[in-house]
Amino acid sequence: MAELIHVPDASDPRLADYVRLTDGQLRKSLEAEEGLFIAEGAKVIRRALETGHRPRSILMSERWLDSLSDVLPALDCPVYLVSDGTAETLTGFAVHRGALASMTRLPLPSLPDALAGARRIVILEDLVNHTNVGAIFRCAAALDVDAVVLAPRCADPLYRRSVKVSMGAVFSMPYARMEDWHKDLALVREAGFRLLALTPAQDALDLEDAVASAGDRVGLLFGSEGDGLSSHWISEADAAVRIPMSEGALAKGVDSLNVVAAAAIACYALTR
Amino acid sequence: MAELIHVPDASDPRLADYVRLTDGQLRKSLEAEEGLFIAEGAKVIRRALETGHRPRSILMSERWLDSLSDVLPALDCPVYLVSDGTAETLTGFAVHRGALASMTRLPLPSLPDALAGARRIVILEDLVNHTNVGAIFRCAAALDVDAVVLAPRCADPLYRRSVKVSMGAVFSMPYARMEDWHKDLALVREAGFRLLALTPAQDALDLEDAVASAGDRVGLLFGSEGDGLSSHWISEADAAVRIPMSEGALAKGVDSLNVVAAAAIACYALTR
Repeated sequence: MAELIHVPDASDPRLADYVRLTDGQLRKSLEAEEGLFIAEGAKVIRRALETGHRPRSILMSERWLDSLSDVLPALDCPVYLVSDGTAETLTGFAVHRGALASMTRLPLPSLPDALAGARRIVILEDLVNHTNVGAIFRCAAALDVDAVVLAPRCADPLYRRSVKVSMGAVFSMPYARMEDWHKDLALVREAGFRLLALTPAQDALDLEDAVASAGDRVGLLFGSEGDGLSSHWISEADAAVRIPMSEGALAKGVDSLNVVAAAAIACYALTR
Repeated sequence: MAELIHVPDASDPRLADYVRLTDGQLRKSLEAEEGLFIAEGAKVIRRALETGHRPRSILMSERWLDSLSDVLPALDCPVYLVSDGTAETLTGFAVHRGALASMTRLPLPSLPDALAGARRIVILEDLVNHTNVGAIFRCAAALDVDAVVLAPRCADPLYRRSVKVSMGAVFSMPYARMEDWHKDLALVREAGFRLLALTPAQDALDLEDAVASAGDRVGLLFGSEGDGLSSHWISEADAAVRIPMSEGALAKGVDSLNVVAAAAIACYALTR
């Protein structure tokens, strides 16, 4: 049974895993150094446990104990009970979704391991927005994608916000992190994937046509929120592919979709 | 030419339109009472002007003047020049995207006026997240939707965050606000729209089949982020429609798409 420990002081070193959760820069280095990530809310924590993640500790207000009463007996980590004020001082925000858990990161598969047996993959260049990364994992899991591959600088799927938005899909969707985008795109191509680079460019192939002729193994490439895929990535792809916009879209001042919408449509088109 | 006025004090009443921009509750009542909305950044401000919106005033740091040098000569509103510190004290955040403009809201069309001539519409129940509302407007504009209809309590498309995420599509996409969802859904149906209620329910029609047999006028209904469409709305629709999930999705803990992804896919399916 997890041990229940009242901790009154936000500066108690036992709570260090939970410090300043809204400070993206600090969390990025802290979580990488410590090999941890934060799961927020009973549903996400339960999902993390079900997918083989081990908690380092749990932090919650005492009134939330019931929300995890089914899982606490089997855990051997400390459960730190804190007041709402201590939680807010510690984390930097009003924790109102119940428990937080600090979990140990599992080793990621190598790129070849992530590709083994996969038919449809999503490859993300340098996305910076954790909400978008989480939402794309959720789409990918829902729409029959087998694995996700991340550029070296793509935002972390295990950042708290990504985890939440993904509905836990970041735990179950296999993903690998590239070490060198150029070599690793080549590796994916050599594994037999046809690489389709999504772009709003007018002269790109229509998505449906590209998908129809893509063959058994397909990789969908998506770029960052501001600029989309870089020209380097597009030139390494087998084809540049566009989602047709309405004729009225440009008149409405809209020349592209956001990356989550584009990923949803492209993954959906692959399943038809 | 817009008049340039240096304002050193964040509590100056001339800056009242810009107070506490991150306080959703306060902004909702203030913007409704005053009939204003806030446009953020030169690109969005320019787009608002192009679509016939009139500025009440503009607020910026002097160093951003060049970013609007093309439009300022034609404006007759005051331009308040403030320091970064004053801007942050006033608005509640570090304004780093350049200018803010307080613009006068245009009267919305009536529901019958919004439907006139429209073939494809999107109808939103009680979405609470402004980012999602903005992203759906962007999808709708890109994918040949003619109008958007909002439930009485759906989040405001002209909230700063919605405007930004929509890339200005909220200015050009006609939309109407329902007064009574029950009567107004009936009005849409009587105007000849087949109402398709998007839901993850297993027994709903496949999206592609529903779209293929939907006829000339189609309304796509989407529900709130947490619970999706209410049962009341689904029962008023002509058909419940689902986007097929992969067989592995449930095993991955994912039983639905987020509302932006669902809207993107459904609008896309309508265009095929």
